Parts: sequence; C-alpha cells; structure tokens
Amino acid sequence: MIKIGVIGAGRIGKMHTENICYNVPKANVVSVADPLMTDDIVKWANSLGISQCYKDYKDIIKDKEIGAVLICSSTNTHASISIEAIQASKHVFCEKPVDLSIDKIMEVINALQGKDLKYQVGFNRRFDHNFKAVRNSIKNGKIGDPHIMKITSRDPSPPPIEYVKVSGGLFLDMSIHDFDMARYLVNSDVEEVYAQADILIDEEIGNVGDVDTALISMKMENGTLAVIDNSRKAVYGYDQRVEVFGSNGMITSGNDTPSTVVLSNTQGIIKEKPLYFFLERYMDSFKEEINEFVNAIIEDRPVSVSIYDGLNSVVIGMAAQKSLKERHPVKISELKW
Amino acid sequence: MIKIGVIGAGRIGKMHTENICYNVPKANVVSVADPLMTDDIVKWANSLGISQCYKDYKDIIKDKEIGAVLICSSTNTHASISIEAIQASKHVFCEKPVDLSIDKIMEVINALQGKDLKYQVGFNRRFDHNFKAVRNSIKNGKIGDPHIMKITSRDPSPPPIEYVKVSGGLFLDMSIHDFDMARYLVNSDVEEVYAQADILIDEEIGNVGDVDTALISMKMENGTLAVIDNSRKAVYGYDQRVEVFGSNGMITSGNDTPSTVVLSNTQGIIKEKPLYFFLERYMDSFKEEINEFVNAIIEDRPVSVSIYDGLNSVVIGMAAQKSLKERHPVKISELKW
Amino acid sequence: MIKIGVIGAGRIGKMHTENICYNVPKANVVSVADPLMTDDIVKWANSLGISQCYKDYKDIIKDKEIGAVLICSSTNTHASISIEAIQASKHVFCEKPVDLSIDKIMEVINALQGKDLKYQVGFNRRFDHNFKAVRNSIKNGKIGDPHIMKITSRDPSPPPIEYVKVSGGLFLDMSIHDFDMARYLVNSDVEEVYAQADILIDEEIGNVGDVDTALISMKMENGTLAVIDNSRKAVYGYDQRVEVFGSNGMITSGNDTPSTVVLSNTQGIIKEKPLYFFLERYMDSFKEEINEFVNAIIEDRPVSVSIYDGLNSVVIGMAAQKSLKERHPVKISELKW
Amino acid sequence: MIKIGVIGAGRIGKMHTENICYNVPKANVVSVADPLMTDDIVKWANSLGISQCYKDYKDIIKDKEIGAVLICSSTNTHASISIEAIQASKHVFCEKPVDLSIDKIMEVINALQGKDLKYQVGFNRRFDHNFKAVRNSIKNGKIGDPHIMKITSRDPSPPPIEYVKVSGGLFLDMSIHDFDMARYLVNSDVEEVYAQADILIDEEIGNVGDVDTALISMKMENGTLAVIDNSRKAVYGYDQRVEVFGSNGMITSGNDTPSTVVLSNTQGIIKEKPLYFFLERYMDSFKEEINEFVNAIIEDRPVSVSIYDGLNSVVIGMAAQKSLKERHPVKISELKW
Repeated sequence: MIKIGVIGAGRIGKMHTENICYNVPKANVVSVADPLMTDDIVKWANSLGISQCYKDYKDIIKDKEIGAVLICSSTNTHASISIEAIQASKHVFCEKPVDLSIDKIMEVINALQGKDLKYQVGFNRRFDHNFKAVRNSIKNGKIGDPHIMKITSRDPSPPPIEYVKVSGGLFLDMSIHDFDMARYLVNSDVEEVYAQADILIDEEIGNVGDVDTALISMKMENGTLAVIDNSRKAVYGYDQRVEVFGSNGMITSGNDTPSTVVLSNTQGIIKEKPLYFFLERYMDSFKEEINEFVNAIIEDRPVSVSIYDGLNSVVIGMAAQKSLKERHPVKISELKW
Repeated sequence: MIKIGVIGAGRIGKMHTENICYNVPKANVVSVADPLMTDDIVKWANSLGISQCYKDYKDIIKDKEIGAVLICSSTNTHASISIEAIQASKHVFCEKPVDLSIDKIMEVINALQGKDLKYQVGFNRRFDHNFKAVRNSIKNGKIGDPHIMKITSRDPSPPPIEYVKVSGGLFLDMSIHDFDMARYLVNSDVEEVYAQADILIDEEIGNVGDVDTALISMKMENGTLAVIDNSRKAVYGYDQRVEVFGSNGMITSGNDTPSTVVLSNTQGIIKEKPLYFFLERYMDSFKEEINEFVNAIIEDRPVSVSIYDGLNSVVIGMAAQKSLKERHPVKISELKW
Repeated sequence: MIKIGVIGAGRIGKMHTENICYNVPKANVVSVADPLMTDDIVKWANSLGISQCYKDYKDIIKDKEIGAVLICSSTNTHASISIEAIQASKHVFCEKPVDLSIDKIMEVINALQGKDLKYQVGFNRRFDHNFKAVRNSIKNGKIGDPHIMKITSRDPSPPPIEYVKVSGGLFLDMSIHDFDMARYLVNSDVEEVYAQADILIDEEIGNVGDVDTALISMKMENGTLAVIDNSRKAVYGYDQRVEVFGSNGMITSGNDTPSTVVLSNTQGIIKEKPLYFFLERYMDSFKEEINEFVNAIIEDRPVSVSIYDGLNSVVIGMAAQKSLKERHPVKISELKW
Repeated sequence: MIKIGVIGAGRIGKMHTENICYNVPKANVVSVADPLMTDDIVKWANSLGISQCYKDYKDIIKDKEIGAVLICSSTNTHASISIEAIQASKHVFCEKPVDLSIDKIMEVINALQGKDLKYQVGFNRRFDHNFKAVRNSIKNGKIGDPHIMKITSRDPSPPPIEYVKVSGGLFLDMSIHDFDMARYLVNSDVEEVYAQADILIDEEIGNVGDVDTALISMKMENGTLAVIDNSRKAVYGYDQRVEVFGSNGMITSGNDTPSTVVLSNTQGIIKEKPLYFFLERYMDSFKEEINEFVNAIIEDRPVSVSIYDGLNSVVIGMAAQKSLKERHPVKISELKW
C-alpha cells in the first residue's frame, strides 16, 4: 500500500483523490493540501476518510509516511513543488504542463538524476480506450507504416476569459494534449511544426493575446505527415477523433456517446452527440492513469508518461507559437534545450 | 435484337419502356398498348422512337414481329393476357402479382407447358444491389446455416384509398415482395405462416377491409425462423432492410440514402433519410430485371424469377390472410394447389 | 446508511457486493451467506471489509441490524427466502426469476401485503443506458404511438449443458429479460404470445428438452406488434439491440463496443465486435439497479422493478412454452393467476 | 439539339461520348477525332450511331454544324485546341487541367474575351451527390461560418510510372481536384498554401521527380483554415471524404460503397470498402457535368465550372510546388498572373 498526498484540491485534485479512494486498491490518500483549505474541502476529505487537511503543501512534503504526491496545484508551482518532492524522495504524479519554461522542466529533470523515483505527467488521454486501441493497432502493424495522421480536438465551449489569460495560450493549454497524442500514436518525435491559427469564435480571446482556432501541420521523425485541428467551440460537443493512414490501411477512432440510440424521424436519422465534457469523456482514462502510476511504483517499472514526454509537448507548443508568430515552419531542433 | 411490345402505359409500363430504350442495348420497344391511349402517351412514345400506339393489346399479341411482351396492365388482366401471349409464342415479362387466384396462375403455368418460352415475374427487388449482396453472402457460406431472418419493409405513406380497395390487401399487394425476398435470401420455401396485423395508421384502410401494419412470422423449409414487418407509413421514408443471422455470423443490409452527408449540430449527429420513393430506391433494380429478362431470352437460359416464384408469393400471402382471419398459424401445404 | 446482507456468494452475488462497496455510498454490506462458505469467499469478503461470513442465510435473516437482503442464491430458493426475509421485515432485492411457479410468486406477493417493504427484482437491463434512452424517447413521444417493436437478444455462446438442464428453459432463463424489456419499453402488458423455436445450434440442448433458437411474436395490450428473437450462439458476440417503430418515427439502440475504433484495409471497413460478455455489457446497469434499490428504501419511493414485473415475465415465458408445445398463439389471460 | 464533336477518344473521351448518347437528351455526338483513330474506335463510334471518325481534330473544328467540342486529348494540346475551337465559335468543354502554364491559360481566357461562348472545365466532382450536398448545406448556413475544412483524397493505387512522368506532378494531377473542391465547398479563394510531401509508397515515383503522399495546409480568403491530404495508394480503395467545421456545426461526407451490406462475424463488424475506381465512384457526376454543360449552352446561362476555376486550381498547385521546394508557406498573390 502506498500512502499518497494530494497537493491542490481543485476540480482535478478532487477527481484524482476520489478515483484513488474508489478505484485504486493499492493506494490510500492520507492527506490533502490546498492554500484555500475551506470547510467544504475538509468535509469532502473527511467523507473519503482523509483526516489530514493542510493549507501548506510542505506539510505533505515533510511527512515521512507519504510515498508519493499528486501535484494538482496551479501550473506556475508545478516545477518547484516537483523538485521539493523529489528531494524528499517522493514519487511524483504531476498535472500537465510541468511548466511553461523549458529551463524549469530541465531543473526537474536534473533533480531526478540519480534518484530512483517515478515521475509521471498527467497526459490522461494515453489511457483512453479509443486512443490505446489505435496505438496498439499501429504498433501491431495493422496499418503498416504510418503515412498521414489527423487529430481532431475541439472543445465544446471556450473557457472563461480569466482562465484563457493565464492558460499559456491555446497551444500550451489545449493542443499540448494533441502534441503528446501525435507522439504516442505513431511512437515518434516531431521534427517540424507549421501552425496556422486565428480568432474566429470570440474576439475577447484575441484581446487577451490568444487564438481560438488552429490548424497545426507537423512532420514526425519517422516520416509521418501529421495535422492537428483545434477549436475552442464545437457546438455539437467535445470532439476528439484521430485518423492514422498507412501503407496497409487506415485506423480511426470516433467520439464516445451517452448511448447508441438512433432516432429516425422526418428530420433525418439522428444519433447522439459526443459526451459533452472532458471529465465525462475521459473519466475512465483518469482512473487508469492513476492506477498505472501506483502500479509503476509498486512493481518498479517505468511510468507510461515520463517527464521527457512532458518536456516534448511543451517544446512542440513553443515551436507552434514561434511558427505562428514568424509565419514559417519551425524545426524542433531550432529550440534550444 | 428483340422486339418488345409493352401492354399498359401507366407508371410502371412507362418506366420499363424508358429503361429498355436507354439501358437495354439488345432490345427495342416497338409498340405500346393502353386502353386509354391518350395524346400524351402517344407523344411520350414517339419521343422514344416508338411509333405503334394501340388501344387494344391484341394488336401487340398478333404482331408476328414482336418476340416478347411486358404485361403492365391491371392485375385482373395479367393471367388472361399472359395466356394469349403464350399462345402467340411470345416471351412474357409480367408485373406482380400474376393473379390473386391460385387457379388462374395454374392456368398460366399450364399454358406454358411444352412451350419453349421465358416467363418472368416482376419481383425487381431480387436485382437490388443490397439484397443481391446479402443473398450472395449467404450462398457463399459467409454466415453458415441461416437461423433467423428479419425483413423490414415499410412504405413512406399509404396509397390512395381507391388503390387500397382493389389492391388485394396488404399481404398480396405489399408483403408479397417480402415473401419473395424471404424465399430468395435463404433459397428455401416457406413451410408455415403466422400473421398478426392491425389498423394503426388510418381507419379508412380498415373501413375498406384492409390492414396497415403487420408482423408475419414464418418457418422456412430449411429451418430458418423468419419475421417480416410491414407498415404503410414510415414518416422517415421508405424503409427496406434485411438481417439474416446464422451459425457463423450475421449479414444485414440498410437503406440507400441520397448522399453520405452527416450534419453535426446542437440537435445531434444527423444522417440523411432513406430514399423516399420506391422508384428512386429500386431504379437500378428495375433496369437490371429487364436486362436480365432480355438476356435470358437471347442466351436461352432460365429467368431469374419464374412463374413458380410468382405463384409461391401469392400462396404465402393467402396463408397469411387465412392466419390473420383464423388466428392460428397456417401451413402452406394446407392451401390446395 | 442501510446495512445489507447478501445471500448467495456466486458470480452475481459477488458482483452486487463489490458494486455496493465501491459505488453505493449509502449502503454497507455487513454480512454474506453461502452454503459453501469457502476460505476463498471469506478472504474475498474480508478484503472488502465484510467480517460476517455465514453458511446459513438464516443468520442474516435474524440479524436485526440488517435492513435489506440481496437474494442471489439458486432460483428454487428465491421464493422461500424472500418470504422469510419479508417476515423479518427486511427489504428484498431478488435475482430473476423470482420463481418458476406462479403459485410461489403469488405467495411472495401475499407475504408483502400490508408490509411497508421494498421488493425489487433483478431485471438490470432496465437500467442500461441504451434501453433507458429508448424508453425515455418513447415516453416523451418522440416516435408517437408505438406500432412495431423488435428485440434482438443473442448470447455469444451456450451455457454449460448442466446449467441448461436446471435453467427452466430458454424462455424462462433467457427470453425472460426480453419479455420484461418489451413491457418496459412501450409501458404496456402483453396480451398474446406465439412462439417458434428450434434446436439449430447444439443437439445436446435438445437432448435435455430445451431449444436454442427462438422467434417470439407478441401482441401488446396497447396494440404494439412485437417480436423477440433469441439465439444461444452469436459468433460475433453478445447481441442486444432493440427497434421500436411508431406513428412519428423509429428509435433503435445498438450494441456497445470496447472502442470506437474502425480499421480500413483490404478486407473491408471493420468495426469492433460488441462487448462479449453480459457482465461487461451490463456492468453499469448492475451498479445502477442496486443504487436505485438503496435509494428507493432511503427515499421511501416505489422500486423500479416490482414483484409484479417479476411475475409478468414468468407468465409470459409460460405462455411462450405453451404456444411452442401446442403450436398456436396463447393469450396471457389463458394462464390462471 | 446541340451537335457535339469529341476530340480525343481515350478512356475519358469515350466515357463522355457514351454519357451524352445515353443520358443527355438535348445533345448528339456527331463526330469523334483521335490521332490514333483505330478500327476499334470506329467500331465503337458506329455502335453509338456516330459516323464521322477523324484522325485530325481540325476536321471537327471546321465543321460548321458542330456547336460544341469536348477536349479530351492530352493536356499539352488543351490550350491550343481550345483557342482554335473558340475562334471557330464553338462552345468548349475542356478536361482538367486546362494547361500546366499560367500564360497559356491566360491566352485561352483572352481568346474568350468578347465571344459569347461557354467554356467549362472538367472538375466533375462539383457534380457529385455528396460534395454538392456539403456545399449546399454550407451555403444554406447549416454550419454557420466555416472555420476548418479537411479534404481527404486518396487513390487506390499509383498510376503507371510513364503516366507519372508526364502528369505534371501530384499537385497538378491529383491535388488539383481538391484545390477546386476547397474553393467550391466554402465558396472562397485560397490566400496561402503550405505543402508537405514525401515519397512513402514507391521510390520509382521519386526517381521521376514526383511525390506520392502530401499534406497541404491552406488559408482561404474567408478565413477558413484548410488541409488536404493525398496519397497515391489507399489499400482499402478510393478514399474521398470532406469535413467542414463551422461556428454552428460540422458537415461531413463519406465514401460511396457498392452496397449497404454489413457482415458480423468473429473478425468484427465489416462494411464494404469504398467504390474502388474513380469512374465508378464519380459515374453520376460525369453524367451530370456534361448535362450541365449542354443545358448552360441551351439556356444561355453561366457554366458551373469556369475557366477561372480552371486557372485557380493550377495556380494553387504551383504555389504548393513552390512551397514544397522552398519549405515555407506561399501566398497565391506571389505568383504572377
């Protein structure tokens, strides 16, 4: 049994905590820290059998009983808390992105050197039943050599403008999942990125310096030509699909829906819309990623999403930002790191 | 080249005539007969290069140049005109049903004895791309031994009440196609029929002694358990599907649609409705059945839909009527013939 | 919080117990009884925090702390244990069928008279996301008046012959779920049943007096014409679909699959087979039915599946058996009860 | 009635000729020219009732009876024959591309100045039922403002290497249809092109200086971000799909298949592959484009695909070539014309 401390009790922190309590038999959450430790959070923690509720995450770091921490605090604290936890010899599960600066991520990587610790980054989509099946099909040679990859990733509606301001921008907030997905599906790094993007949905997003619609072309190191398209607003729901075409065939995955029901009437033949919200859509993948993290610790095997995966996605996002600004394709190797 | 006379210039007669002119290279329509030979029909015929337009079909029967006739007149004339045509040594393509009386169909069969003539019945659906593919899959062993067969056959809207009155009733007017389809798909005759039916759509249909909705269970001679469901009114269009389940798998066919377009919006994921009208839906099958008839004559090989197929469907329809009236299953062998 | 005793620790009993432990916050399983209480069962129970493990279910019945029991023992004990539990003033969740005899079910109904107890029967499929969505669409008038209903229910492979022997036969073991589904979907009782069935898969099943393939036509009291088709062996997996056609449209539900992945290659365009096993397919519905049972107790509202629902399905099954034996349609009212 | 001369009796020339004979009531093909006028071609022409078979297309140009010509000869002759036909006051239907040089297309445009003649370019896909339905949905506001457009266009197998050599390259031979489709679907011109491409299928194609796989990103003048992906070899058949995503929804079209048949077996749930060959897939669109051309002449209204459409596609193709060579995005306005 691993004892876990959860740092940050916002939406994601709570979800991970509940998943561990209900679905991860080999781990216990023993303490939760949040700078705004409210009565509600305490009540929620107690109902799950968690008695230690701290304002200061350092109380978790210095607890010798705790073997692993989940870092679900705000992005700007990820790197420094990671380093403290590593120095206290704790395994770390860190929400994405590790940081928005390559240098800071490198510091975390350096801190890990020589330590026998697991460090997993929260790219939960790698654990989704659809994407895993696509990845496995490709790995098993079902489509031969991959030639063309298309990733569709569209949110049902834009986040609050306050969130957009501090999000790091579309590429590092939203596309970052798709950058990781591209690397995961064809098991190859990215060589070059060309990004097109615009403000087509909400001018407010433009006013705070971000974009809301993007089309990102990439060349993978294994030769696959890839394209990601992102939108902050798909009125029909959360649209998450992939298509990988290769020398021996094509594999695609579609959206999950609340049911398989089809209504035929004078309007047409009508299927259900995709599951609307990412927490519904990826519920099972969130459970599985935490289970995997715990199992990696217990069985002492590599985590499924390493800090290098976390680093790569950020670097690709920066290349996309550079490409969009300078209006030409950008090689990943151009970015110092 | 075969010279053809068309008897009956209603909707179906005209369609066959045009199909022969445009799509059957080895046959010519040389004359058309209709008791109501109007100026419009003459004009239509002339535009197709057909100069001989008669009121009396006997002018076609006695024309020695004519090798084959298409009988598209009213049902009550099918049998007698068939016999006259056979006696004049002409090949016959006869619209379904051959007749509503078993005795009269037997007279046509008797007239054919000893004659080296082709007689094809107009069960066009045997030539439909979907149903042919289902039949061929079964024939090629793709599903093993057939166990369960489900045929859905629903019209988009009821015919005029005047038509219903003289139609012979739902079973002999509409289900008759499905009886033939059942025999065709699993290549077996029907052993027993149990019919449920009701007036659920339009009381007027009940007032003239017919039903508008039916569910017909059948046992095929090869052991397949079959069910046909019919409705006179599917608001989403002409619904024509089959499902055959067997020891090694299942084969289904769906509806054809105007396009493959799918619209995703706040209402749902919306596909196009089926092609609405039987002339659109089965356009290609009508072309192919006439081509097949002409080729059977030219190459002197059996027709694809024989008069025995025509007889069987009528007998099954009568068994269904008897079952509905007497409220118990009826064996085909109970019907004298 | 409700304290629950589970009677019968076979596959289903274990599943319900685990679901309560992990997914039903308002109930606790405090004891488990099984005549073969092995070390393995004790170990399993202890791992879930259940310390009271009995050989004799009466130890549960007489435990005053226990508010509700789950009866997951063999069918022939359902009725008598139900009555004992009712007499001890415990709420009851009983697996289907309540009994294979109408008289015994009536005894349970009588025992419930004047008691303020909940009694729920284990027709879990009513809680399935697909079937619920179909039912709700019909209830909300989406298809108008239902005219035709088709229920497909096929197992991936026959159960062991030893199980078949004691199962009560296909109609009471397998179709019973579909009888309940028919009543549930269109919210109407059955008026008449006509059953066709045969041994098409495995002669051994015939040797023990059962059938393996069936087609059951029914007339519902609200006029809907219905058909159920059953097979003990669908090689492509567990096939569970419904189609309800009405005056304003049609609603269907399809199978759930492990993923939405589609592979296109030289063989065709290939989707995943349905989830193979009923425990996978109906996992969520099992969780929800137990939650509903607990909530019905806590909030003192009617259960979703009453003992009358349990009774009805058995009566329909008997009507189907009679119809198959006597080769004619059987009215439900013919069965005394 | 319009009398038509067909110049070039290769595969496409023959197809157009047959379509006019069988499906275009208001036009007659009266003569055919081909430099290799073989006995087979003469025989074929005669069987269609065409008696004038020439080696020299000038015999058609100088025939005063002929009102329109179809130019189906080799690409390098399109422009000069077009000009001769225009000077002889004949309407022109010209296969794509008009020419591989912008200057030569401009000469044709200049020749058309002041003439009251129709000039239609053979972008048949605009007449396809699927793409027309997508275009109409967008035009009718069904998806709001278009934001993202994805066009998939993959051949079932590469053409002979001899053809590749003279084809003008993937962009001008194959993608050219997709450039036109992009402009057609969202009714907007292209502003900028960025092309990625590689030799992933057959080195021979690289040896003759061409590519076989491409991903082309575009920015449309109306702001739509677009991507085209091309492959010379999709093992599952001819893959022709589009997806357009907008502010109010998404519209997609899929592939046409030989039938709607689905086989379920131990391998999976298997649908038919797309129609394999472009002549099957686009058969109806070829008929309709010629009908439209004839109707545009008769009713004196604009053609559906003008020479400016022909010009635009070639210019976009050149921009793609430039982008691929120079490794940066290319604005259409950079190309002189």
